[in-house]
Amino acid sequence: MDAARLHAESIVFDGLVVSKWSRPVFEAMRAGGLTAANCTCSIWENFRESMDHLAAWQRHFAENADLIRPARTVAEIKQAKRDGKVAICLGWQNTSGIEDRLEYLALFKALGVGIMQLTYNTQNFIGTGCYESRDSGLSDFGRDAVAEMNRVGILIDLSHVGPKTSEEAIRASKKPVCYSHCLPAGLKAHPRNKSDAQLKFIAEHHGFVGVTMFCPFLKRGTEAALDDYLEAIEFVIRIAGEDRVGIGTDFTQGHDRAFFEWISRDKGNGRRLVDLGEIVNPVGMRELKDYPNLTAAMLKAGWPEKRIRNLLGLNWLRLLGEVWGG
Amino acid sequence: MDAARLHAESIVFDGLVVSKWSRPVFEAMRAGGLTAANCTCSIWENFRESMDHLAAWQRHFAENADLIRPARTVAEIKQAKRDGKVAICLGWQNTSGIEDRLEYLALFKALGVGIMQLTYNTQNFIGTGCYESRDSGLSDFGRDAVAEMNRVGILIDLSHVGPKTSEEAIRASKKPVCYSHCLPAGLKAHPRNKSDAQLKFIAEHHGFVGVTMFCPFLKRGTEAALDDYLEAIEFVIRIAGEDRVGIGTDFTQGHDRAFFEWISRDKGNGRRLVDLGEIVNPVGMRELKDYPNLTAAMLKAGWPEKRIRNLLGLNWLRLLGEVWGG
Repeated sequence: MDAARLHAESIVFDGLVVSKWSRPVFEAMRAGGLTAANCTCSIWENFRESMDHLAAWQRHFAENADLIRPARTVAEIKQAKRDGKVAICLGWQNTSGIEDRLEYLALFKALGVGIMQLTYNTQNFIGTGCYESRDSGLSDFGRDAVAEMNRVGILIDLSHVGPKTSEEAIRASKKPVCYSHCLPAGLKAHPRNKSDAQLKFIAEHHGFVGVTMFCPFLKRGTEAALDDYLEAIEFVIRIAGEDRVGIGTDFTQGHDRAFFEWISRDKGNGRRLVDLGEIVNPVGMRELKDYPNLTAAMLKAGWPEKRIRNLLGLNWLRLLGEVWGG
Repeated sequence: MDAARLHAESIVFDGLVVSKWSRPVFEAMRAGGLTAANCTCSIWENFRESMDHLAAWQRHFAENADLIRPARTVAEIKQAKRDGKVAICLGWQNTSGIEDRLEYLALFKALGVGIMQLTYNTQNFIGTGCYESRDSGLSDFGRDAVAEMNRVGILIDLSHVGPKTSEEAIRASKKPVCYSHCLPAGLKAHPRNKSDAQLKFIAEHHGFVGVTMFCPFLKRGTEAALDDYLEAIEFVIRIAGEDRVGIGTDFTQGHDRAFFEWISRDKGNGRRLVDLGEIVNPVGMRELKDYPNLTAAMLKAGWPEKRIRNLLGLNWLRLLGEVWGG
């Protein structure tokens, strides 16, 4: 099949985009043929700041209704595909936005936040992040939070979460959970990458793995091209199975150095946790508009069409349906 | 020596009062001959709510200047004694008020908060409380917080903190720390009470123990009288030495049931952590105004006058001088 046509027909779901939200980014998402994405709208923010972002999203939706629409259900994602719009699934990379209030989980879900990472890099009320010296696991408050996220239908994301907290969250959750954007430690050792055992464990518990192309965690770093990304996806598929894997690019398009400084420090301004170095996406997929190149590379690599469709989006949609219901 | 005169002459420092702040309570404190107290003004509150309390304290100080004065130094406590006023040392039983910002420690210190408990009952950004299923110790953020509290001169309180976090905080702190209000587990087993080993450990590290008379943690509970309290003090002195022990009543005068419900639940409204039952102070010291009875009981028990003066306040003042400087 023709790569352009396959891409245009496919549901393309990106499990993590954390770009600088603006009309140019929305235009790039549509130009890239994205159907939908988990769009980060809180990382270190507190309750009020997270609410401010949601208020800003109301404006984004109103002002860019020709390009994007909010999506809280799989049906709404499919409708966006039919309408030629990009479906925005709001997501958080932390739970700082609920501060100390479990009941805010339902409040934010009602405002469209359907995916939340339990912690971002360090320890919070719920558990421990991947850059903390010691992973103390899921707290009692964390167990209550997992139960509430299960109840209200928020997909639990563990990408930046520590290994012990991740394992306990996977065991505690009654619904499937995900690493929305990660790479295998089997290709490059890094605190953010997941070991073979971790990938196997989440898959065995009906979970999901979105594979990122964030260059600091790729084997060849900023030298990486699309083939390196496909290698990582294939590595994960061999462990987790091809029904439980999808895309989670971690596109940071439009952000400046201050943003990377902010995400690299504890709670935004504390101790430095990681030196990310230069951030540049793999050759062939430098920008969101280059998304069709990914489908072309998959075809060129000889992947069967069905596998490509599953990887690009159908697997993600099945997971979201299980967690969100309806 | 006459008990009334000894009490009137002594510096009387209460290491923990968490009463319902109002003119009647201030009147009771002065009637009881209190020189100064660590007055709780934040437990589960966030940044804004903690600031609101400090704003309210500005009003308390203005409207009750005949009874109370703020004190940030030992010299100010001694001045209050000379002036016949009660010195208010503002303190927190949690670090929820700084939310995720270490630099707020200096901000609150500048507003007079000179004593802070690292956690209240459960896990927060810094460490773990005494009612959490598992104590994961001091987090990386917690180590940064301890260093900053040392730097700005905030006395670290570990009364409601878990044993592992307490031990790590005692080791990490470059200044002496305290259990401002606790009882020995050797007299009654309870998650809030401290073992002989814990009492020995903090004393060996130049720390301090304030002994509470909070009935749920006393051996005879609501049946307890002043002699039971003296027994607990003597128990602690035998382990920690009589220079490192003081009073920390935990007077909750004026609070209603809603307050006790709020302090008994995680973060104020989460899962129930403890059933405190009836809260009533020991016979002979039901109210703050009854403080002279304590000195009388100490004399009656045959305690030497020097020991009584040290226990009532001089030990506390030495500790505060070491941590606050000046």
